[in-house]
Amino acid sequence: MGDRLPPGATVGILGGGQLGRMLALAAHRLGLRPHIYDPDPDAPAAAVTRWSTACPWDDVDALRSFATEADVVTFEFENIPLAALDTIEALAPIRPGRRALEVSSDRVTEKRFLRSIGLATADFAPFETLDELALATAETGRPAILKTRRLGYDGRGQVRLGPEDDLGRAHAALSGAAAIAERVVPFGAEISVIAARGLDGEVVAFDPGENLHQAGILRRTKVPADVSEGQRQNAVLAAGRILNALDYVGVLGVEFFVTRDLIVNEIAPRVHNSGHWTSVAATIDQFEMHIRAIAGWPLGTGDRHSDAVMENLLGTEIDALPSRSGSVHHYGKSEARPGRKMGHITTISPRRR
Amino acid sequence: MGDRLPPGATVGILGGGQLGRMLALAAHRLGLRPHIYDPDPDAPAAAVTRWSTACPWDDVDALRSFATEADVVTFEFENIPLAALDTIEALAPIRPGRRALEVSSDRVTEKRFLRSIGLATADFAPFETLDELALATAETGRPAILKTRRLGYDGRGQVRLGPEDDLGRAHAALSGAAAIAERVVPFGAEISVIAARGLDGEVVAFDPGENLHQAGILRRTKVPADVSEGQRQNAVLAAGRILNALDYVGVLGVEFFVTRDLIVNEIAPRVHNSGHWTSVAATIDQFEMHIRAIAGWPLGTGDRHSDAVMENLLGTEIDALPSRSGSVHHYGKSEARPGRKMGHITTISPRRR
Repeated sequence: MGDRLPPGATVGILGGGQLGRMLALAAHRLGLRPHIYDPDPDAPAAAVTRWSTACPWDDVDALRSFATEADVVTFEFENIPLAALDTIEALAPIRPGRRALEVSSDRVTEKRFLRSIGLATADFAPFETLDELALATAETGRPAILKTRRLGYDGRGQVRLGPEDDLGRAHAALSGAAAIAERVVPFGAEISVIAARGLDGEVVAFDPGENLHQAGILRRTKVPADVSEGQRQNAVLAAGRILNALDYVGVLGVEFFVTRDLIVNEIAPRVHNSGHWTSVAATIDQFEMHIRAIAGWPLGTGDRHSDAVMENLLGTEIDALPSRSGSVHHYGKSEARPGRKMGHITTISPRRR
Repeated sequence: MGDRLPPGATVGILGGGQLGRMLALAAHRLGLRPHIYDPDPDAPAAAVTRWSTACPWDDVDALRSFATEADVVTFEFENIPLAALDTIEALAPIRPGRRALEVSSDRVTEKRFLRSIGLATADFAPFETLDELALATAETGRPAILKTRRLGYDGRGQVRLGPEDDLGRAHAALSGAAAIAERVVPFGAEISVIAARGLDGEVVAFDPGENLHQAGILRRTKVPADVSEGQRQNAVLAAGRILNALDYVGVLGVEFFVTRDLIVNEIAPRVHNSGHWTSVAATIDQFEMHIRAIAGWPLGTGDRHSDAVMENLLGTEIDALPSRSGSVHHYGKSEARPGRKMGHITTISPRRR
């Protein structure tokens, strides 16, 4: 038992979007009390629990009160202000820990870390000035993707630089932020592994899913991914290596480009959109797995009982009638802006392999 | 579309126990807003939503406010005070409707209804006085089970009357309440069907589960039930007949004794403990099915992808470490009284038939 939180303990969750919402629902199923911290009083996750705080990230008193009531604190996004983390960490354990956040919140730090543990990444070079950009792309070659080092998601803060594109225009699009140039990897498929590590070091992984992105946004994940058994195993082993190197506690998402080798695209120190299929096609889903891990409970099985296709519902796609054959998850967001993730639907079929 | 509630609509739920809690979690997944009404401020369901009212059942103002904000009202138990239902019904639709509540809240009315639509029940006779009890058991024979007509659950308000037992003592144990004598049916198994009917009359049923009771409390449900294909079909058809005869909207549980024939034991006009396995072994579970029905949405598939065993965790059984292979559901109740339903665990295995 030891560090195992008892039922009735409070799990603080930083961020109240759909990931925080699904984490909160999982905490309820385990008899734990999710407390959502999000500056937006209408955050989707705040609606699904009795306990929520709607205060700014720099409200030290509110952060202290939140952390004092929490037995453990976790998060749904990786760009939490560092000062807020400092305030919380003095009062409650944060899981996964600061090291995972440091590594994953900066694309350059992340790639250096991945290479340091022997994993392949795209060729890359950091830059800030226009001159540095010229040097960086000389190193990576073109086409390259230019990305801000921090705060990008769903394709934001990214510019594709083709062989003929103007360097100055591309640089201006990034507004002078610290950035990274990444060589474009010609890949056959993108897959992701959702894996978890418990407080005692136990590691569990779900089967890799195969992802389809459009305009930088995940549209669809299917399991099993169309990769060889060797690639499947290598992807799972790579995720395990990352978890252990970070002394990680909780669920992590790792995206890979599938070429002749597996190339790590990026890691997310949290539950991940490409793991939503687990809610329908696995006994224990990524959200329950994460809560079990950070609560010091034994992890559950990662077994998948069915094949599955998960599709994101963006903007007004959510208005379609609910499917009869699929399981719908609606995030409870009121405004269906174009491209906004409003929900997802998962359909399953008998497992073929 | 028509009567279909839009996401963001409010579903009022009368009763905040574990069934109300799981209904509320399902409503969240569909983007609807569950509002719990329960006199107990610590009701398990009130913790899993932003919207709850903790007022007595005779607080007319609170009931009116609750009903005014609700787009539809449902319930997790069948013995809601009639005056409260009257107050609510003037302001919001109640689904399933009053007829289902009238029939199922009185064991005599229920059995007469079942026989009126051609379904078999145990022989029975109502009684109130000791003299009437003597006549009743002369009619049913012994052994018989004596039950209060109203307000019994989990074996409460029941007395078994063996061939040698004293009538007066048995009568006294029921405290003079209006009661029913039921002939004991020597059965091989008890099964239950969880079925749903939509606002448009569509009917969907889950596969029958086989139930094991101890001391009047459900311990375990397994699917598939060990019955013939003909019995399976007959059980599903009987549930459909009940749903249609009651012009029912929502999920209904029907318990059967399996003898040479199927004998209906009782019906429950709500989600049912013996249907909890659907949360893990079916794409769409009984809670989502119920919310879809009362919200006027199309029902989902009742397909089962796996075999399953669901076990109730009573009293301190909840303290066992969470299983690695099973999906745990903890109801968030603080006090683990002996025999109290604290949670359940479901394990699945590949579907054999």
